[in-house]
Amino acid sequence: MKINVGVIGSRETSEGNLKIAEEVGREIAKAGAVLICGGRGGIMRAAAKGCKEAGGMSIGILPILDKKQCDCEYLDIVMPTSLSFGRNIFIASACDVLIAIDGNYGTMSEVSFALNYERPVIVIKGTGGTADYLINGIFKVSVAKNAREAVGIALKLVK
Amino acid sequence: MKINVGVIGSRETSEGNLKIAEEVGREIAKAGAVLICGGRGGIMRAAAKGCKEAGGMSIGILPILDKKQCDCEYLDIVMPTSLSFGRNIFIASACDVLIAIDGNYGTMSEVSFALNYERPVIVIKGTGGTADYLINGIFKVSVAKNAREAVGIALKLVK
Amino acid sequence: MKINVGVIGSRETSEGNLKIAEEVGREIAKAGAVLICGGRGGIMRAAAKGCKEAGGMSIGILPILDKKQCDCEYLDIVMPTSLSFGRNIFIASACDVLIAIDGNYGTMSEVSFALNYERPVIVIKGTGGTADYLINGIFKVSVAKNAREAVGIALKLVK
Amino acid sequence: MKINVGVIGSRETSEGNLKIAEEVGREIAKAGAVLICGGRGGIMRAAAKGCKEAGGMSIGILPILDKKQCDCEYLDIVMPTSLSFGRNIFIASACDVLIAIDGNYGTMSEVSFALNYERPVIVIKGTGGTADYLINGIFKVSVAKNAREAVGIALKLVK
Repeated sequence: MKINVGVIGSRETSEGNLKIAEEVGREIAKAGAVLICGGRGGIMRAAAKGCKEAGGMSIGILPILDKKQCDCEYLDIVMPTSLSFGRNIFIASACDVLIAIDGNYGTMSEVSFALNYERPVIVIKGTGGTADYLINGIFKVSVAKNAREAVGIALKLVK
Repeated sequence: MKINVGVIGSRETSEGNLKIAEEVGREIAKAGAVLICGGRGGIMRAAAKGCKEAGGMSIGILPILDKKQCDCEYLDIVMPTSLSFGRNIFIASACDVLIAIDGNYGTMSEVSFALNYERPVIVIKGTGGTADYLINGIFKVSVAKNAREAVGIALKLVK
Repeated sequence: MKINVGVIGSRETSEGNLKIAEEVGREIAKAGAVLICGGRGGIMRAAAKGCKEAGGMSIGILPILDKKQCDCEYLDIVMPTSLSFGRNIFIASACDVLIAIDGNYGTMSEVSFALNYERPVIVIKGTGGTADYLINGIFKVSVAKNAREAVGIALKLVK
Repeated sequence: MKINVGVIGSRETSEGNLKIAEEVGREIAKAGAVLICGGRGGIMRAAAKGCKEAGGMSIGILPILDKKQCDCEYLDIVMPTSLSFGRNIFIASACDVLIAIDGNYGTMSEVSFALNYERPVIVIKGTGGTADYLINGIFKVSVAKNAREAVGIALKLVK
């Protein structure tokens, strides 16, 4: 049974954050874990790209029913839903651990559910949005300086 | 068609916050709106109590299938689910507007979904937890000083 | 705490079935129970109409987020979701007992979940579709000859 | 992007049906498709076993949050949920096509949702339960004589 690492974050974000997401995807692949994401653009697409390049396995859980409208061409497995944002609760429970980069409401909903489900959450510092908001917040999350450290912490917390 | 006002917050909270929740329930009843909550103890139970006392109508959406295990004896209508925390997405979408008092992960998940669903969220200042965390945060919420103001803002934002 | 009676069935059906649904709605109202339906046209709208006429309370759980697009103007309380057909699982769990008139896949999904959740299901004989398919089937449902009998059985099975 | 084939059916079934499920799993693996199931015993476990033996990839979507309580040790990827039976809607939407062997309410809920989501459903004749009930029914499903034919039809219907 593989370790499922979620990568969550914004559809629109900076170039720097996209590079971080790609590196997170590569590190997940190198570790032999499975990348799970929301199957859309931005952070999700960049993470799937990195994962693919490093020969890893990635899964996207879509808010829509039509696989062909998936924005994320690097995914190995695409799982549509009819749930719109509601699919976020499935992302949160399906992962053993989640890594947040930037992000908005959707990312916060995934983090909130993950914490309810007792899945550890790692946020990458300096990426803005929900990630940085969580660092200075009241919820218990781990903080990583960069992509590599984030995946390292994620794997340590799961084992 | 009635206005649905959600009241969300902690199962365990201060006496002061319970009084605020009761007053929120009463104000919702007086306005002729329907109170929707998660059907558990703490803020949810206090709000339903206030609503009942003022002759209002309240609905609880349970995380469990057994109505008899509902902690909230003041509710008029109880709707069980099999979804555990997942029922929070239903609370968020079922309401036209939500009022948060204190709260933890669960409350944050409801707020995040409500914002995704474009439902306005009002937080009552000084109640702690998720409510106060949101005031100093990055998400767009309205801030109320007390129960009465919260329901007043809620009704204004819906109309 | 009120008894929740679900009325499920087709959006498109015969005039005769619509009259049966209306009568089911009226009987639910007379019994002081709450009518829960999917908030769309056909059987759902007719049942809500009957309920309203007899001074009862009805709730519609929509597959869409926008209350204004509700086809069912007789409802007292409308609860939108973002779940599309996925809202059917919520209808099934929210009800203490369900009555099926005609129906297609959606109705069958609600019946299946209701049986999983140990909620009794009554089908009205001769209305066609899923209702009649269930009568000659392998699942344990109760059979009623008409609207009045259906509501009578429903209330007896809940108590 | 891989083809997702769902295998749905009873937790308790005959030895003969378990052999059919195993063969379905093997055929899915040989075709290079991904097997998706509910991650429990019976048909689900047998299908995952066959898939594993033939070197395929399988995913189980659990009704519970704890991966360690998964009954199905042959799965490559396990995705927990907090949704109980509610996870069935996710199985239905995640698959491009579904194969039903025997089955009860849960299987019928998956078939109903799959048809709502316009995913083709193949039932294997003579396996009993929901599968045979569907053959003589009102819903549009394809009928296969055996495991091999079922997977053959499934792949043809997806392309």
